[in-house]
This record gives sequence, C-alpha cells and structure tokens, in this order.
Amino acid sequence: MAGDPQEPQAPQSQQSQQGQQGQQGQQGQQGQQGQQGGADALELLGEHGCFAGRQRFYRHASAAIGLPMRFSVFIPAQAEKGRVPVLFCLAGLTCTEETFMVKANAQRYAAEHGLMLVAPDTSPRGAGIPGEDDDWDFGTGAGFYLDAVCEPWSRAYRMESYICDELLRIAATVLPGDAGRVGICGHSMGGHGALVLAQRHPGLFRSVSAFAPIAAPSLCPWGRKAFGAYLGPDPQDWAGHDASRLMERAHCPFPEGILIDQGLDDGFLAEQLHPEAFEAACARAAQPLTLRRHAGYDHGYYFITTFIRDHIAFHAERLRA
Amino acid sequence: MAGDPQEPQAPQSQQSQQGQQGQQGQQGQQGQQGQQGGADALELLGEHGCFAGRQRFYRHASAAIGLPMRFSVFIPAQAEKGRVPVLFCLAGLTCTEETFMVKANAQRYAAEHGLMLVAPDTSPRGAGIPGEDDDWDFGTGAGFYLDAVCEPWSRAYRMESYICDELLRIAATVLPGDAGRVGICGHSMGGHGALVLAQRHPGLFRSVSAFAPIAAPSLCPWGRKAFGAYLGPDPQDWAGHDASRLMERAHCPFPEGILIDQGLDDGFLAEQLHPEAFEAACARAAQPLTLRRHAGYDHGYYFITTFIRDHIAFHAERLRA
Repeated sequence: MAGDPQEPQAPQSQQSQQGQQGQQGQQGQQGQQGQQGGADALELLGEHGCFAGRQRFYRHASAAIGLPMRFSVFIPAQAEKGRVPVLFCLAGLTCTEETFMVKANAQRYAAEHGLMLVAPDTSPRGAGIPGEDDDWDFGTGAGFYLDAVCEPWSRAYRMESYICDELLRIAATVLPGDAGRVGICGHSMGGHGALVLAQRHPGLFRSVSAFAPIAAPSLCPWGRKAFGAYLGPDPQDWAGHDASRLMERAHCPFPEGILIDQGLDDGFLAEQLHPEAFEAACARAAQPLTLRRHAGYDHGYYFITTFIRDHIAFHAERLRA
Repeated sequence: MAGDPQEPQAPQSQQSQQGQQGQQGQQGQQGQQGQQGGADALELLGEHGCFAGRQRFYRHASAAIGLPMRFSVFIPAQAEKGRVPVLFCLAGLTCTEETFMVKANAQRYAAEHGLMLVAPDTSPRGAGIPGEDDDWDFGTGAGFYLDAVCEPWSRAYRMESYICDELLRIAATVLPGDAGRVGICGHSMGGHGALVLAQRHPGLFRSVSAFAPIAAPSLCPWGRKAFGAYLGPDPQDWAGHDASRLMERAHCPFPEGILIDQGLDDGFLAEQLHPEAFEAACARAAQPLTLRRHAGYDHGYYFITTFIRDHIAFHAERLRA
C-alpha cells in the first residue's frame, strides 16, 4: 500500500514527542512502568487515541528471541479501573505488528467489551540468518509461531516462547492485562498459530478463534516448507505443531467451542488451508466447532473486518468470568 | 506499513482471475458495463467481498487528467435493487485510493445505510512534471482537489474536474450511484477538498463533512505552498479554493449543517488546520456547523475510525430522500 499509515506523517521527532505527551495522559501509569528499565522494559514508539482507549506500538529487547521485537496493543478505557481480559491477535504471512490493528477494526468491539488486544510481529527480524529474507512465505514475516529446533533457525525463531512466556508476562505485568483471562485468535498463518498455541497451552488460553487458518500445515506447501526447515524433515516431528493432528489425539480441549470463519472465494483455500481436516479432527475429538463458510469472501482483511465483531464477542463472552 | 494489504498476496494472475470471477457474480452487471469500452471504460484491478457488498479497485483512462487514474468503490448490497446514494471520500497528503477503504472502516456503516463509497486517488501520478515527486506535501499525492491554472501543473493536475465531472458521472452511470444523492467527506487535505468542492458545486453535493480538514489553506504552509504553485503567487487568486474564504462570502449554503471532527492531540492542528477560521466564517454566514473537538485524538486513522460511524450516519440521513 502506498498510503501512509498515519497520514500525513509528522517528522520522527514529533511523533516521538506526541507519544510522550500521550503517555503522560490517559494511560500514563502503565506506560511509565514500562520505561523504568529491567528485563521487560518497553520503548513506546507511538500512541494514538482510539475509541476512548489507547493504541500503542512498542519495541523491546526480547529475551526469548535475543533481538529487538515490536508489538502493538490496544488498551481499552476499562483498564483505567482494573486489569482487563487480553486477546492475542496473530497476523499472517508478510504482516507485522501493525497489520491487524490497522485493518481489522477490532478496536471498536474491544472497546465495547473492555478487551485488551495484543498483536505481536510475525517473526524475528534481522536475525542475520542466510536466506531469511529470500522468500515471502518463509523466514522473516513467516515465523509460524513455533520454536524452531533446527539450526540456524533455532537461534532466534522462538515465537512460541516469545508469545506464551515473554509477551504474555508483559501483557499481565507491565500492561494492564489479566493473566487469568487470555484468549487467542489469528488469520491464516496466525490462525494456525492460534489453534496450535491454544492447544499446546490450554492453561494459558481460555478462548480460541481463527480466520482462514492454515488448519493442517503438514498437508500444505506453506506448512511443509516452514516445518521442514524449522522442525526438521521428518513429518512425524511436526505433529505437535499441526492444529488438526493435535486435535486428533485430544478430547474436547475447549468445551466452550472454537470459532472459525472461512471465505469460499479464498484463493488459498484448496491448496493451503484445509479447514475440513480440522473439522474432521474436531468431530473425532468431540470438540465443539463453529466453522462458518462464507460465499463471496476472499482471504484478505475485507473479509476479516466483516466478521471481526463476532470474534471479539465470542472471546469476550468466554473471558468475562 | 510493512504488512501486505491482502496478505498473503496471490500471484497477480490469480488476483486478476479472482476479480473476474467475482465480477460475474453479485455485482457482475455493473462491472461488465464498465468493461465494454468507451470513454468511461473501467479496468477492474481487484474485488473483495465486504459486509455483504463488494469492495472494488478500478483503473481507467481519465479524460480530465489525461493519464490513467485509479479509484476504489464500495458497493453495498442494496445496489442490487436500484441506484444508491454516493459518498465521495477524499484522503489526505501521501495517501492513495486505497487508504480510506483499508483504514477508516466506513464499509460497515455504508453497508448498513446502503451508501456507495467512492475514494479517488489524491493526485495524478506519473505526469512527468519536474519536481512532482520531490516533496511529500506537494505534487504526487498532494493534488489538493483543484484544477491547477499554472504551467506545468495545469497540464494534468485537474482533480476538481476529475472528481466533479468525470468520476461523478462514472459513479452514476457505469456504477450504480444516484447522481441526485451525492455527499462528500474527507480527511486533512481531503477535508479541504470536501469543504471546498461542496461549496463550489452546491448542486452536486447535498451533504458535507470532514475530519481534521485544512480549513483555511491560505493561512497555512501546506496551503500556501500548493496554492502558490497550482494557482499562482497572488493570495487573492486563492479565495475560491479556500473553505473559510468561500464561506465568508456565502449565506448558509448547507442549511442541513456541516459536520467536522478535530482531534486536540493533532500535531498539525495549530500550524496547518485552522478550524477556528472556518468556524468563524460559518458563524458569519449563518451556516450551521457541528465542530467537535476531541481530547486525546491525533491526526491519523485511529482517530477517523473512532468517529466514522457518525459521519456515515450524517450523510445517510441527508441523502435518504
């Protein structure tokens, strides 16, 4: 997209200053805590008023990744009165921590329900691994939300630890999230991430949903390429990172149900996504699944924004108690 | 923004194919009319399902500009049953025809009210005029929605004729818009465009609103730079393109009111925007104006998306009859 995210852009110094000014206002306390140093110190890169809450962009030195990482967060006004439920929002291939916040329009509904949204980046950046920037569906922008076990990727590509340990801790300490009420959703590669991380960490995530997820990565070219390099060539070693294979050996891990939306005009549906595999696995596992198939919708954010309201309401209902 | 608009992107041929498939579906008739050739022939670049309507991107050979131009349109489902009201949405400096459609989330409310949204690009592109790409606030991406009178800009920079003649005709003939029910809104430079074009063409536009408009361009650096080059060095020659100066010599051109939202944390407010000048001119002209000043909001799309619902409702109410 040629257009400028915050058109017209202020000079960098002014943006930084605006962030500081905003930080001393509505949500100043949490922001300042984040800048007092220590392991989870956060650098505020930008802050914007949004639906009576605050949309923020942070950078921090990630211990899990070993590199600087960026993430974004929407903090609803309800956080002024106490800790709020948290929804992790995982984006897809080629995206950044900004994509979901700019395009999904989840903030309107997060503000209504008092949910905090946290969107991590989609991979480490600048790891210095040969080939990391060669392909759009592998390496940079394509971390697949797992901890790589194969060299050289295992040095930095540890997105599972980053999200489930480090970023969740930050969300519930430096930021005003409630660690006991955390949900996860995602799109495409991020839908794979949501379905897999929720199953691998049932104690952490109480609700899970996805848009057009890569639901059976062992079966598709994107998944085989990434898993082969990150996890090794033997597909047997991928089972623990494949949403459908995890579900096949489970028994109703989410009794309150899972929500998936899938567009039927999605150009990646037949080759890459395989929701029917996850649907079959859920049936076998007695896992309630609402899989909605929508004629006329494709893989992009015009599809996501059409249905995001239902996903935010789904999570809010399950994270309320 | 690093993230990809329609992540992950299909190969170009596939996108094109998807567009063709979609075109033969829900809104096929209008789309095909657009491809039958003739002066207003449109090339469909992309099409996406969105809130039960269609989000489309077009390219066409503009007679007014003398170059290919792009625009985007959201066509609500109501257009299947007849012509619908049209809202032109003008973006700001550095933006394109895509910015508003991706970031404002106007489609949700346009779908509810049955409004068609039309977002033009913000200037000609590739005019080949020396210096057109040198500055982000002048030339490419900064057409200021006027017909330049000075060489060399007058050769291509004719955005007023493009929008008010050519694009409006296309919206109401090739596309299913109702030429008798047209409103206009915009942001920043586009807010200037909306306030000025509505006043210069009261027979065309029945409703007008703006987000953080450049409300008195003769008074600000952006306006003086652009008007000086496009319209000539004498500020007397700018009066017909300055929203506040136009309003000063008018008498209540919009009895149903004008709506403006302005963030008070907007870093451009003091130097570039001058809503107080427009406010004073409206008072003098007995023009009803709702100018809402919002603490905690800046100049960007997180501000716009927060208040877009009110603007769409404002226009829908005035364009209903």
